[in-house]
Order: sequence, then structure tokens, then C-alpha cells
Amino acid sequence: MKLWGGRFADGASDVFERFSGSLHFDRRLLDADIRGSQAFARALERVGILTAEERAAIVKAFDEIRTEAAAAGPAFFDGASAGASDGTSDEDIHTLVIRKLKERAGAVADKIHTGRSRNEQVSLDTRLWLREECRRVRDLLRAAMSALLDLAAKYPGAVIPGYTHTRRAQAVLWPHYLLAYFEMFARDWERFGDAYRRANVMPLGSGALAGSGFPFDRDAIARDLEFDAITRNSMDASGDRDFALDFLYAASVAMIHLSRLAEDWILYSGEEFGWMELGDGVTSGSSLMPQKKNPDSLELIRGKSGRVMGCLTALMVTMKGLPMTYNRDMQEDKEPLFDAATQVTGSLEMACAVIQSARLNPARPLAAAQQSWVIATDLAEALARAGTPFHQAHQLVGRLVLESVRTGRQPSDWTAAQLQQFAPEFTPDMALLLDARQGMRSREILGGTGPQAVAQALQQARARLAQMTL
Amino acid sequence: MKLWGGRFADGASDVFERFSGSLHFDRRLLDADIRGSQAFARALERVGILTAEERAAIVKAFDEIRTEAAAAGPAFFDGASAGASDGTSDEDIHTLVIRKLKERAGAVADKIHTGRSRNEQVSLDTRLWLREECRRVRDLLRAAMSALLDLAAKYPGAVIPGYTHTRRAQAVLWPHYLLAYFEMFARDWERFGDAYRRANVMPLGSGALAGSGFPFDRDAIARDLEFDAITRNSMDASGDRDFALDFLYAASVAMIHLSRLAEDWILYSGEEFGWMELGDGVTSGSSLMPQKKNPDSLELIRGKSGRVMGCLTALMVTMKGLPMTYNRDMQEDKEPLFDAATQVTGSLEMACAVIQSARLNPARPLAAAQQSWVIATDLAEALARAGTPFHQAHQLVGRLVLESVRTGRQPSDWTAAQLQQFAPEFTPDMALLLDARQGMRSREILGGTGPQAVAQALQQARARLAQMTL
Amino acid sequence: MKLWGGRFADGASDVFERFSGSLHFDRRLLDADIRGSQAFARALERVGILTAEERAAIVKAFDEIRTEAAAAGPAFFDGASAGASDGTSDEDIHTLVIRKLKERAGAVADKIHTGRSRNEQVSLDTRLWLREECRRVRDLLRAAMSALLDLAAKYPGAVIPGYTHTRRAQAVLWPHYLLAYFEMFARDWERFGDAYRRANVMPLGSGALAGSGFPFDRDAIARDLEFDAITRNSMDASGDRDFALDFLYAASVAMIHLSRLAEDWILYSGEEFGWMELGDGVTSGSSLMPQKKNPDSLELIRGKSGRVMGCLTALMVTMKGLPMTYNRDMQEDKEPLFDAATQVTGSLEMACAVIQSARLNPARPLAAAQQSWVIATDLAEALARAGTPFHQAHQLVGRLVLESVRTGRQPSDWTAAQLQQFAPEFTPDMALLLDARQGMRSREILGGTGPQAVAQALQQARARLAQMTL
Amino acid sequence: MKLWGGRFADGASDVFERFSGSLHFDRRLLDADIRGSQAFARALERVGILTAEERAAIVKAFDEIRTEAAAAGPAFFDGASAGASDGTSDEDIHTLVIRKLKERAGAVADKIHTGRSRNEQVSLDTRLWLREECRRVRDLLRAAMSALLDLAAKYPGAVIPGYTHTRRAQAVLWPHYLLAYFEMFARDWERFGDAYRRANVMPLGSGALAGSGFPFDRDAIARDLEFDAITRNSMDASGDRDFALDFLYAASVAMIHLSRLAEDWILYSGEEFGWMELGDGVTSGSSLMPQKKNPDSLELIRGKSGRVMGCLTALMVTMKGLPMTYNRDMQEDKEPLFDAATQVTGSLEMACAVIQSARLNPARPLAAAQQSWVIATDLAEALARAGTPFHQAHQLVGRLVLESVRTGRQPSDWTAAQLQQFAPEFTPDMALLLDARQGMRSREILGGTGPQAVAQALQQARARLAQMTL
Repeated sequence: MKLWGGRFADGASDVFERFSGSLHFDRRLLDADIRGSQAFARALERVGILTAEERAAIVKAFDEIRTEAAAAGPAFFDGASAGASDGTSDEDIHTLVIRKLKERAGAVADKIHTGRSRNEQVSLDTRLWLREECRRVRDLLRAAMSALLDLAAKYPGAVIPGYTHTRRAQAVLWPHYLLAYFEMFARDWERFGDAYRRANVMPLGSGALAGSGFPFDRDAIARDLEFDAITRNSMDASGDRDFALDFLYAASVAMIHLSRLAEDWILYSGEEFGWMELGDGVTSGSSLMPQKKNPDSLELIRGKSGRVMGCLTALMVTMKGLPMTYNRDMQEDKEPLFDAATQVTGSLEMACAVIQSARLNPARPLAAAQQSWVIATDLAEALARAGTPFHQAHQLVGRLVLESVRTGRQPSDWTAAQLQQFAPEFTPDMALLLDARQGMRSREILGGTGPQAVAQALQQARARLAQMTL
Repeated sequence: MKLWGGRFADGASDVFERFSGSLHFDRRLLDADIRGSQAFARALERVGILTAEERAAIVKAFDEIRTEAAAAGPAFFDGASAGASDGTSDEDIHTLVIRKLKERAGAVADKIHTGRSRNEQVSLDTRLWLREECRRVRDLLRAAMSALLDLAAKYPGAVIPGYTHTRRAQAVLWPHYLLAYFEMFARDWERFGDAYRRANVMPLGSGALAGSGFPFDRDAIARDLEFDAITRNSMDASGDRDFALDFLYAASVAMIHLSRLAEDWILYSGEEFGWMELGDGVTSGSSLMPQKKNPDSLELIRGKSGRVMGCLTALMVTMKGLPMTYNRDMQEDKEPLFDAATQVTGSLEMACAVIQSARLNPARPLAAAQQSWVIATDLAEALARAGTPFHQAHQLVGRLVLESVRTGRQPSDWTAAQLQQFAPEFTPDMALLLDARQGMRSREILGGTGPQAVAQALQQARARLAQMTL
Repeated sequence: MKLWGGRFADGASDVFERFSGSLHFDRRLLDADIRGSQAFARALERVGILTAEERAAIVKAFDEIRTEAAAAGPAFFDGASAGASDGTSDEDIHTLVIRKLKERAGAVADKIHTGRSRNEQVSLDTRLWLREECRRVRDLLRAAMSALLDLAAKYPGAVIPGYTHTRRAQAVLWPHYLLAYFEMFARDWERFGDAYRRANVMPLGSGALAGSGFPFDRDAIARDLEFDAITRNSMDASGDRDFALDFLYAASVAMIHLSRLAEDWILYSGEEFGWMELGDGVTSGSSLMPQKKNPDSLELIRGKSGRVMGCLTALMVTMKGLPMTYNRDMQEDKEPLFDAATQVTGSLEMACAVIQSARLNPARPLAAAQQSWVIATDLAEALARAGTPFHQAHQLVGRLVLESVRTGRQPSDWTAAQLQQFAPEFTPDMALLLDARQGMRSREILGGTGPQAVAQALQQARARLAQMTL
Repeated sequence: MKLWGGRFADGASDVFERFSGSLHFDRRLLDADIRGSQAFARALERVGILTAEERAAIVKAFDEIRTEAAAAGPAFFDGASAGASDGTSDEDIHTLVIRKLKERAGAVADKIHTGRSRNEQVSLDTRLWLREECRRVRDLLRAAMSALLDLAAKYPGAVIPGYTHTRRAQAVLWPHYLLAYFEMFARDWERFGDAYRRANVMPLGSGALAGSGFPFDRDAIARDLEFDAITRNSMDASGDRDFALDFLYAASVAMIHLSRLAEDWILYSGEEFGWMELGDGVTSGSSLMPQKKNPDSLELIRGKSGRVMGCLTALMVTMKGLPMTYNRDMQEDKEPLFDAATQVTGSLEMACAVIQSARLNPARPLAAAQQSWVIATDLAEALARAGTPFHQAHQLVGRLVLESVRTGRQPSDWTAAQLQQFAPEFTPDMALLLDARQGMRSREILGGTGPQAVAQALQQARARLAQMTL
């Protein structure tokens, strides 16, 4: 059947080369590859494969390649993927780098492969790259936490109705609400710390799968590259991608948190809630309806959460059921990893800008809180603290709210006297609780929305943040 | 906290522009966007917004843009994303195309937006693009099916042990085995046909969400663009991405099938099975161990199956829980869609090349079949057909195999006389079944591995393939 | 290390039996297993393995088992999983059914296995069960569509602001909004039809993998069980689970649609929107805050969408990379399949009840529409239709809205005279459009929100629904 | 449309009750619920809501309920879900427990709700349950690691060909191979430790979302229930399910590791490899083909990996985009969590039994290693260590293998003299390397397969295992 058979006229090899080449994505490992190879040159010197001069020449050539790449930008790779000077193309970043090394350092470049396999090199490069990404993400998480605290500081006493089931439930302080996200990001910061630790293990010396045949001092290589530990089994090192999964999982959870913040603020900044204003710079307007501010930045964050979870799924599926040790399937770890890193850092950067741009309009959520009987729980608990059995207190307040709803009364429509008339259990001081701002004063429990508890939590959050260093 | 605060010195807008811009991926819709816009120009002419001259000028300008893009290659977009002539950059492919239109057609270009929203335009472009991809995938599926039939034709009588639980179970013909994949690909071909039909519905006229305010003849636009139908509800049209999911699902199932073929052939071409040889052009060798042929192409196919399922997961998650109608989250449909299309077409192309390159070494699987008592079922069923109750037949053969295994005898070590001595139920003709090639002659049932059944199935497959047209 | 070693004192077999047994879930296939086995008994009669009397005895015994099971309820399985009368336990539903058959029909029961493998039996049972589930789901989808139309009929002229980006964008009719979901469910109805057709293929005669050794008339069995077709390749039939995936995918998309309806209505019925009231019977109240109505039914539907997508992921992962043909991994198809079926039917049933219980409060969304300049597009398009270039019309209206927002004016605050004073392009009749109910009259395009277009769409929907039969 | 409308005749409430009830699955939290409630009774005593006598009565009643449940088994819940004595049914485990409490302790039971919300109670119960599950899984992981070391000890010097790309690559020691899985399980053990730590945070005192209105000493409650810390923000506590995700992720990675072991051993125990024998108790035989041993236990493990990943996907999707704080969607966390716990503990238990049952047949893999030129790398590295530039050494050995393959020679067919004749660089001692058992002696690097390195690694593994305590 000629129709489509012609497609393969160029020969199986061409199809295969296009299909298996990875330079279009693994170029992102350039810096890591150079750094790792320089350390490996020093390791080769230590076992006598390279002389000091050779090692120096190689290290210097690598430095020059890094400089060349920085100067050239994307164009650095253009010639490469199109084909090297000899007409062949580089299938991946490692091939490209070695070709460049040969061009600069000559024959000695061949020695850089002595006692090092591609499998361990790829593992090393990915780990080096992941460490940097973990650092970047953690910096951005700190930035986001800091921005939340700054936003809290702008409206220290603002009151909003807190929601369960997307229904107004109890009044809380705006800073208390923001601290909930602080806690999520703090957990993310820890999770990326776990991912960092899992990536921070040095695989060189593992050979292709059986361990190197050269007596490398693996601990010395680890120190050179600032790794905390070395991998303990060469076959595991060859077949392992747990460290990539750990990053993808941490990224997925962070994106879930961001998706929830996005959902909240899309609602809070909409016409119906009307609580907050997002900055012009993070929304998209409409020349037709100038009052319209679409929260595109938040929608994209929320949307990208799916993307990152897709990346995690992708690599989990790829790894499932693979026999020991390395299989080429594992090359498919890179693109999900790179994409997830791009999305999570981009989303955090965007979220920071959104948080920094946000302005609360405190009157709206306060009014929502005051008019919605969110104080019911406060009243019931006050009765219980004063001795009314909780069950009874609960029912009493229930009747009060029902009566009010039927007669269209807000909490502020009641006086202390009327309350007591409604039920003698209501003491005069309980009337204070009709103001949503008062009820929270009884929630001065650790982690609660009581003003002092929140002030203390903010202070502690600031202090914790200051100590969040790698 | 200045450390990271500096990151946003460039202003929220810059972060947002980088975060929300889509030109780096939606450029893939260029052709679709031009084709759709040309049809829309004709629709505008029909409702009197454009004169015939204006319409002609616009259509011509679009043709020129298409030509320019084809000539320029990737460079066509370089200037664009870097910024237009006026220093601003194009956020997406639609903006770029309109800017180009203005450069060529002048003021009349502004009219192309009359009565058309971005929402419906994106939907249209994606549908046009998806139709083409479905066609490409279906062509490649046909190519793969054809290659399977060609491979079957090369070894019409080759016998292999069929497996359950990765254990030799019963002898089957090699063509029968290949036809199993033919059936899977045939279902994929149908599934992509479903995806095609779901994409093949014309959304223009839906406006942003409420329907256009211009009296377009939507059926005429559909005919112009060769759509089978029009969308029936403007709000649904604005918020719908089912057609993208349908494609991603079809791609995921196709990749599962390919991953199974890959798994089989990685094993069959390995040292332990030794059944088949993959072409040099689709394997990667080793200069150190020249006999080693790594089945990288198949491993990558298997690995990429994870990637495609990740794309499906990504978009499902993104769509989950979105309120009506369009939300910017939905921009995140493109990259999973594009990536999945790239992977599934690439994998099919690769699979075709692998199938075409494959050489069976029939002696190895035949020997495996002959030595493994895969004929046990044949014997038992022959006994049952001859009147021995099945349960008893089953046990009888079980004892025969057990005895043989204990005494190290292959099926070929038994004679008819010995069989009858072992148990009188064994008639002389049953001894023929000791040869694995004979047993399958009793499986001339529709869909079975009987030689005539397989010959007929191959013929029908060829005929079905000839009728698989869009 | 004794500490945990003791755990396995009961021997590997016990662990394995517990691990591999499936009766606790595959009991759901009881009816299908009986029905399939009865048909197979008739097939055995046709090839002479069973006499007419034997067949009749077997069929009758199966009928009795079905009756016994219906009478006993869950208790039917209790004895079974605990162990049969002889002290052994049944590992799966098929074993249980055969044991019961033996108890009733005696020795002839052994013959039911003649020429039938467990692999094809499981495939058959699952397909029979899936057909029923597809029917049930499609019935429920029709019920949901019908409920939407009923709800539309209650408020034929109600106006709501339609949303993009969760921002008020243009006014639409409430029935038009409901029809968007009608379209989604209609696609789901089709998708489950596809799933039905894929399941509706008869596998018996495939043997374990090589085709049966008995000359069954497979088409006759298919007719007996009302299948449309027979599987074409025995190895494919043995290793195939596409039909299960197709169901899971259709269920996933349906759940996405339901999750969006849930999201919308959770918002619409909340304090901020206040558009609609959900029935007491589908919400959960609070004795403390009697006015609070938590939309738990909708939240659960939205939450369960994750569950169903998880089921799809589960089976896709399980199937990835499996070698031909049957592998025991495939037993893991059942629980995701059963769970997804339970969730999607439960969610649809729940959604129907919610839709039936819903009451719109038309004044609220109408007010939202009237006060939000959602008429801007109407005005701009009217200007364009009257000859003002669209770009200019767009800008003109933009200025009008901006001016109004700045001076706190609603559309209703403008008179025709004032409009014309603002810009001469505004003709007196355009002032009508200041009422959101008027603008949609210009959207009488097919699929648009124009009152006549909607009335027609409702009529057609009713007619289409009447024709949605299996 | 009456046909299906009848379905809802029983009223919306019934549908809703069935849809939202959770007793059929959350019964698994019974112990946790009782334990948590007993601690809460003590907390209520400390704030003066309960007297010492009341507290004692409640704690005692709970003890009795626990005893009753243990005695009754599943029947404990039967009455409950069918309906309580007063004819109503319990919607969840918490309702059931309180009803039982009332039956035993009378009116005082009402007080147990004072100052505690359902949201925090569910969070507490789940965390208590998860801690136990993490402990169970970690115990099982230790058991698996121990079994691997035991299996290694049985064949300390066995040689197998190590694989890359499912192709024989280099010879390794069998214990070295097993240690690769030891490392994976050791990482899993750590990951479940992380999950434990994340679950091990006490939420009580958070109220529904705003913090409790009673001055509980939260640290005291934490100490009572042996928690390491308390949650820091009440809104976060109410809306958080990270701890559930962390467990699901750890379970997913563990299942990936198990799926790889399963894949390896399914192959190694098959006819083609023939390396190992799995115990009768963990395989399923065939009465027809007695030599056939289907590795069902391993196939099911591999298959269940999909199931567990599906559970992770399910909960991630459910949590995506939920607004603050608690939403009923979150009830859908339980079933994926319970199912994943069941699958991962069952799979580990099964894996332990399989490992314990495994018997290696060392001659087969040794022969495979000796005949496959897996020593090529050893030779090349020996040449390089002796001074031949690596690139040249590589090519030299390549030629040797090519020549051997062409002439059908195994490594053992070469003598030292012949080698030196082939190329003078081959020194006599290098001929030793023709034996696959010799080459690995040069891999005495940390983590390599050198016999001493492996012996040391085994010793360390044993020591590490002894220190793996919670």
C-alpha cells in the first residue's frame, strides 16, 4: 500500500533518530552536564586517568563552553540539532557537549568517558538540575508566604465570613484566612525539602549498572558536587527515578493549594462577592466592558494544576512494570519533569504577583458577616460556657435564628433586652456577640481566629519564614 | 523581604504576559486559524458586513500569510514573539495573524472581528486542527495494520507458543498473533473516527456565549469548512472541550495497545526468547558489544504511553468543576493535546518502521512450542470430542504431562502405541497432536488459530483495511 | 526476624487465597454468569456434548440458583466466601455458581466447562453486565435531560447573566443555560452508546487464547445472548479490556459535566448569588443555623468526579505494557469498573433529584443582569449592524460603560435622549437594549439565546429526547 | 416522562440518604473514633464541661462499645445501617458510635459534642487511622527487606546477567540484584515515615473552621493521643487533606517498586529465562498442564499498582479547585484511602510470601552470563586501567566480540595466548576476565557488584534494617 508507505522512504534510521533524539528538551541540562563533567574530570585525575594538565584543559574548555552557551542563547543549540560541522546531528545534550569539548580540547576529550556510563551521567545531571529547581521553588514559596503576610498586615482587623460548603459559617479575621494558605505553602516548602534530599544523592561510580571498574573515591566526588550522600547500589542507581517522582508529587500538591487560592479569589473578586480587587496587571480587561476584570492569571493557575498532575501521572505510568535496570522508557522522565517545573515556578511567580496586587474592600465581607447569622455558633457556645447544656443551647439559638429569618431581622436588630425576653438564658453580655467582630474574641485558642491568637500566629509565621532556609 | 521581591520589579504585567502568552504553542493552529478566518470573511460578506472586494482582499491576504509562513519556517514566529514592528509582542496565534492581516490588508482587517468572539474562534481552530490530526492518526493506523499483514504474509505457517500469564499455553500461528494487534488497531481506527465526528461540529455563530448578534447562516459556514453539523447551544459551545478529551482518550488507548506490542517484541527479540530480529535502523547498538541490539524504539513507545495518559489526565483535571461557560483554564487544553498528537503519531510512525524491519526466526518459537507441552489442551479436547467426559479427559492428560515432565520426555518422545498403553482412551490419530502444528487444525472456528480460519481472517483483514477510509 | 515472620505462619497459600480471591466483588456478575452459562449449555447441546435433557436440567438448575440468590440477598454469598459445605471456599463467582450447579444438577454440571475457558467466560460476563449498566446510565441520562427540560418549562422567560471567567458577560435565558447541560448529557448518552456497542461483541468460542477446539456456531451463541457481533481474533479476545476502558471514559466525561453543574448550582444557591433554592431533601441543614442549607448532594457529585477519573486511570495503568494475551493483572479491571458504575449511576440519580427539587428565584438573576452592563455587547453589535464600524462601535460603548461606572449609573438610568447626546450613533431604538431582556432578541441565531431560538431548541430537545432509545 | 420518574417516588431524601451515607465504608474508623472521643471526654473534663464521674462513665461506655464491636464482627454494623432501634439509620460511623453511647451512658452522651465539630472529628479519626496504617506498611516493608536479605544469604555467590533495555549487559551477583530492591523498599520506608509525620498532627480545637469557643489545652489532647504536634490554623485544619495525599503517594511509589519486582520475577521464573522457581503456594497451577505454574500473585501485585495510582489520582482531582474550607467533596477521601491501604498492605504481604518461597536455580543465569559476552566491559576497562586509551580499548574489545560472534565463539573458547595474538594489549591476566565471575572483582567500589562490596553492603543492610524502627 504505497499511499503511506512512502512516508518511510527515508529509511527506518531517520524515523528512529527523530523519534529518539532528545536535544530539543534535554538542552535544559546543559549547566548540570558541564558541572558534573568538570567534577568527573577531577575524579579521573585522582585515579590517574587524567594528568593535572589534561584535567585543567578539560575544565577550562567546559568553562568556555558554558560562556559560549550563555552568550549565544537558544542559537547555541540551533547548529547542533541541525547537525554538527561534520554533518551529523547531536542526539542529546551530552553528545553536543562532548562534541564541543573535542572541538576545544582535542583528543583528550575522549578520556572523559573513561569509567562513566551514560546512565549514571543522566541521573547525575537530572539530580543536579532538580536540586536547583527545588531551591527555586522553595524561594518562590517563601516569596508567596511573605506576600501573604504582607497582605495580612494591610488589613489586620478585617472580618470576613468563613465558609464551609461554600456557605457562610463563622466570622474569621482576614489574616486568619490568609494564614491557612501560609500553612499549606509551609507544608509545600517542607515537601520540596524532602524532594531536595531525595535528589541530593550522588550516583557516579555506579557504571552502567554494575558499578564502575575504576577505583573512584565516590565520597570525594559527592563533596566536590556538594552532595550529601552517595547512592548505595549500582543497579538501583541505574533504574531509579524516585527522585523525579518526588518532585512531581510535591509540585502537584503545591498546585492543588494554588488552585484553591485561585478558586477563592476568583469568587471573592467577582461581582457577587465583591470583596477584593485584583491588580490591573494581573487581570485581563475588555475594551467593550471596561468595568470587567477577568481573573485570567488565577484561572490559568487553576487550569495548570491539571497539567502538573498529568506530569506526575505520566511518569508513574512510564515507570510501572519496568524490569531492572535502565530501560530507554526512562528517557520520558524529562519532559514531564521540565514541564512541571516550568508550570509550578510560573504559577508561584504569578501567584506572588497576584497576592501583591490584591486590595481588600473590608466593608463588603464585614457586611456579609454581619447579616448572615454567622454568630449563631458564638451565641450557642457562650450559652454552653454559661452552663446551658450544649444540646439545649444549640436548639435555643436555632430557634432564635429561625424566628429572625422569618421576621427578617438581622443580628443587629436585636437588643439585649429582647434577647433575654426571647429566652432568659441570654445574659446581657451575650448581646455583644450579635456583632460578628465580638464572637471571635472567644476563639483565642491556639490556631483559632481570636485576634490575639491571630496576632501571635502572624508573628510566629514571620519568625518561621525567616528560618526557612535550605 | 527584598531577596525575592526584586523578582517582580518588572511589574505584574510582565509576569502575567509571560504566564498567559500562548504563541509558543498555539502557533500550531496557524493553518486552521487562516482557513477559519477566510471562511468567516465569506460569512461576513453574506451578511453584508464585507463587500465582495473587501472579502477578496482579506482572503488573498490570508493566502499570502500562509505562503509567507510556509517559506519562513519557525522564523515566521520569531519576530512575533519577540515583538511586533511596533514593539509589542503577540500574545497568541490569533493576534499574530490579525497583525499580519493588517499589515497586508489595512483597515479592512478590523472588520474580521465583527460578530466573532475569541472563544468560538479558538474552538473552531482546535476542531479544524483536530480533524486533520485524526486523519493523520487514522492513516498511520492503517499503515501499521498494513505492515502487520505484510509481516504475517512473510511467515504464513510459522508457529509460536501463545502465552497467558507470560507462560507458554497453546500453539498459535504467527499471523494469528499479528492479527490480534490488527484488531486492536482497527478499534483504534474506529475510536479516532468517533473523535473525528465529535470534533466535526461547527461552533461559529455562538458568539462569546450567547449566540452571535449577526444573522449568520451557520449551516453555510459549516458547508464552507466541510463540517457535518453545527453546535446546538451557544453556552455549551463556549464551555465545551469534550472533543479534545475524546481525542486524548483515543490516543491513550492506542498507546496502550502499542505499549503491549512493544513489551511483546522487546521480549521476543531478546536473548532468552530469541525469536525475532529488529532492524538495525530501529535499534541502538553498542560499539563495545556489537552483538547487543537495544530495542530503544520499542522502549520509547512503551514509555510514551505514560506521557499520553498524562495528557488525558491533565485535561480531565483542568475541566473538572469549572463553572459555565468559558474560563481561561481552558487555554490549558492545547499543550496536552498537541503533545499527545505528537507522541501518538510519532509512536505509530516508529511502530510502522519497526514492524517493517522485523524478521522472524521461525525455528526458535517452533522449538519452544514443541518442547513445552502446549499441546495438552489439544489432547484433552480431542479426548472430549471422542467421548471421554471433559473433566476426565482433563485429568488424564494432566497425568500424561506430569509423567513426561518427571521422566524428562517431550511430546515427540511419545509414540501412538505408548500413548495407548498409557491410557486406552488415546486413539492412534491423537498421536498426531503431539506435534504442535497439528493441534491447531482443530481450531478452525471463527477467530481461532486454525490455518484455514487464519487464512480467511487475513483475507478479510485485507479487505476491511481497503475499506477503511474516512 | 520473627516479629513479622509470624504473620505468614499460616502458609503462603492462605495469603495467596485471600489476595487473589475475587468473590467479594465479582458477585456482581452473578446474573450475567448464569445467563451466559445457560446460553453456553444450549451451545453444548448444539455440538452434541449435552443431550436435550441434560441441557434442560442445567438451564433449570441455573434458573433456580438465580431465584435462590434473589431470595437470599447478600446472605447468598456469605456461606460461599466463608466456605462451601465441604469446607473449601469459593475463590470467585464462577466457582460459586458451578458449585451450586453441582449441588442441584449433579455430575452433568462438570460438562459445562467443556470447550469453555475461564478467560472467555469472564470476558462474556463482563460484557453482559456492561451492556446492562450502559442501559441504566443512558436511562438516567434521559431522566436528567427530561428534568432539565421540565425545569426550563417552569421559567420560560427567566433571564440570568451568563458568565465567562466567572464574570457576568451577557444576558441569557434560563432555559438556554439549562440546554447547555442538555447538550452535554446528550453527548454522554451517545458516548455510552459507543461503549455499549464496543461491549456488545460476543467472545465465546475464543478458548483460552487459541480458539475453541469444539465447532461451536459462534453466531448462534451471539444471537442467543442478543449480541450484535462476535470477536474476530481469539488472542485479542483473551487479552482485550478496551470495552471496560470505553465505559470508564464515558463515565469520566459524564462526571466532568456533572461536576460543572454542581459547581454552578453550589454558587447559584449560595448567599452571594441567591438565585435558586435546592430542595430540603437534597441538602443538609443545621439545627444551629436553620437558614443554612448545605448543598451536600452537589458537593458529593463534584467530589465523586475525582473517584471516577481515578478508576479510569487505574485500569489504563493496569493494562499498560502487558504482554499478550491474558494476564492475571486484568482481574483488577472489575473493582474500578464496578465502582465507577456505582458512582456514575448514583450521581445521575442524585442529580435528577436535585434538578427536580430546584426552584429559581427569577428576580435575583434578573437584577444581576440589569445592573451589570451585560448589555454592552448588544449595544455594540446594534451599532455595527446600523453601520458603525465594529471597532469604533466597540470603543464607543466602552466609553459609555466607563462613564456610567464612574458616575454610578445603571443602564436603566439612561434615556434614549441622553444616549444620543452621548453619541449621535445611538439611535432611539437602541435605548430599548438598555433592558437586558431586549438584547437577546437580536440573538435569534440557531443555538443562540434569542427567545424564539430557545423555544425552538426546547421543542427540538424534547423531540430528540423522545427518540433516544437504545 | 413516567418511565424513569418513578425511580424517585421514594422522595429526594431517600436518594440523598443513600448517596451521602458513609457507614458502609467509614466503619473502618471505629477504633479511631472511639479512641479520639475518649481523649476528648478527658479534654471536656479539663475545661469543666464534664465532671470526673461523667467522664469516667463515658470512657467506660466507649470501652464497652469497642468490646461489643470486636465480639460482634461485621454484624455490629448490620443493625446500624439497617436502622437503629428507633427506626432511623446511622448515616456514618460517628452517628452510630454516639447512638451506642447514648444507649449505654444516657443523657450525658449529648455533652460529648460540646465544642467539637464533625469536621475536626473526621480529620482526627483519619489521622489516627493513618498512623496505624503507616506503621503496618512500614512493618511489612521491613519484612520484605528482611526476606530479600534472607534470599540473598541463600545464594551468596550466585551470578546473573544484569540487564539494561531487557538485554544482558554485565554480570552481577544475585545478592547485588536483590539489594537494589532493598534500597527501593528502604526509600519507601522513609516515605511512609514522612507520611506518618504529616498525619501525626492533632486537629482538635479547630472547631468547624474558626477555632473552638472553649479553652481547650490542645497540647494536652495531643499528648493524650500521642501526637507530636498540633495543627496551627483552624481553617487550614478544616480544609486540609494533604496527609491523605502523602499516604497515597507513598503507596503509589511502593507499588511501582513492587510492580518492577513482579515484572522481573514473572520473567525470571518463566520458561525462557528459567532462573527461579516460585513456591506452589503463591502460584496457580493447571490440572491440565501440571508443569505450568502461573505467577498469579506477582501479576496481581503488578495489576494492583494501577489501582493504587488510581486512588491517588482520585483524591488529587477531588481536592483540586475546592474553595476554603471544608466541602462535602472531601468525604470522598475515605474510599480511595482505604482501598489503597488495603492494596498496598496486601501486596506487600503477598510479596513477602513470594520472596520467601522463591528458589534460585543458579546454573541457568550463570550460563546465561557466561555465554553472552557480558564481560566485554570488564575487558575494556581492564585495558584502560592498564594504559590503553579508553576509546581504543573500547573499540578493541568491540572487534573481539564481533569476531567471536561471527565465528560462534563463547568467551570460554578463548585462551590467554589467543587473546594476545588477537591484540598484544591483552595481557595474560586479562584472560581471567573471560569468566563472568572474575570481572566483577574489579567492581569493588562502594555500591558496586564486587563480592566484597556486596558482602559489606549486605552487612550494612542488615544493620540498617535493625535500626528501622518508628
